[in-house]
Amino acid sequence: MSLAPVDFPGAVVDMLLVEDNPRDADLTLRALRKKNLANHVTWVKDGAEALDLIFGPSGDPAQTLAQAPRLILLDLKMPRIDGHEVLRRLKADPRTRAIPVVVLTSSREERDVERSYDSGANSYIVKPVDFVNFSEAIQEVGLYWLLLNQPPEPRGAPKP
Amino acid sequence: MSLAPVDFPGAVVDMLLVEDNPRDADLTLRALRKKNLANHVTWVKDGAEALDLIFGPSGDPAQTLAQAPRLILLDLKMPRIDGHEVLRRLKADPRTRAIPVVVLTSSREERDVERSYDSGANSYIVKPVDFVNFSEAIQEVGLYWLLLNQPPEPRGAPKP
Repeated sequence: MSLAPVDFPGAVVDMLLVEDNPRDADLTLRALRKKNLANHVTWVKDGAEALDLIFGPSGDPAQTLAQAPRLILLDLKMPRIDGHEVLRRLKADPRTRAIPVVVLTSSREERDVERSYDSGANSYIVKPVDFVNFSEAIQEVGLYWLLLNQPPEPRGAPKP
Repeated sequence: MSLAPVDFPGAVVDMLLVEDNPRDADLTLRALRKKNLANHVTWVKDGAEALDLIFGPSGDPAQTLAQAPRLILLDLKMPRIDGHEVLRRLKADPRTRAIPVVVLTSSREERDVERSYDSGANSYIVKPVDFVNFSEAIQEVGLYWLLLNQPPEPRGAPKP
């Protein structure tokens, strides 16, 4: 497994991991792989890369989406564009509003929790500090959102 | 366990189950009880009862909420007021917008899925037809939303 952010143009992104911390990203990808949930995971390192990947570099609201992931795992504290702004943009656009977004953060601060839900976060998970608990939490998140939850049909995205 | 809708004035509602089918409600309560997740579950039989319980009989938006559940499991097809309208009302009110709402329905129809996410449903679960799978799905929902997910602090609700 590479520690470099995953980037494969033309491939369909099932799950998008937006995380600036390489160690957390690595643990997340390993945990998902153990449950065979890591197919088509794309990892990007900040909010700007995430928005580029989904909306395309032009960001034109009349354009087809470049990617419509089935699930987005979103860190909050990131350089350039943070998770709150990514969430706001995703939930304000009819093409991306229905994509489940799970906030995955170290912050337990109530203002982060409230702001995330107010922006339309589907779920808010505080990263466990302990390595084993972290991996188990990621696996539960993956299993819940990819196997149990019913996602909407992708809108405004190119067909796989 | 009683099959009558649970109703205990003055008690704090942790989880609200809005379900018109007594068999599904019974299975849901049993499944949650097996995982010790059934404390303070309140079951109501339709959307009108759910809105009354949360907003109080007057429904006055300036009033304190009568109840602010930590989690709402919401069926869609119900008499009087259906799940779509309950969801719309909950997500349009700043006092209740942040409460996680999991749609729990037999409908796989894309218009129900899309409409639910557009209204702000946090998650959409299609009820498994099989009894064992149904119970397992309910337990996964309960464990995910009550133990892993971080809910917001209740707003506009009386203190326990």
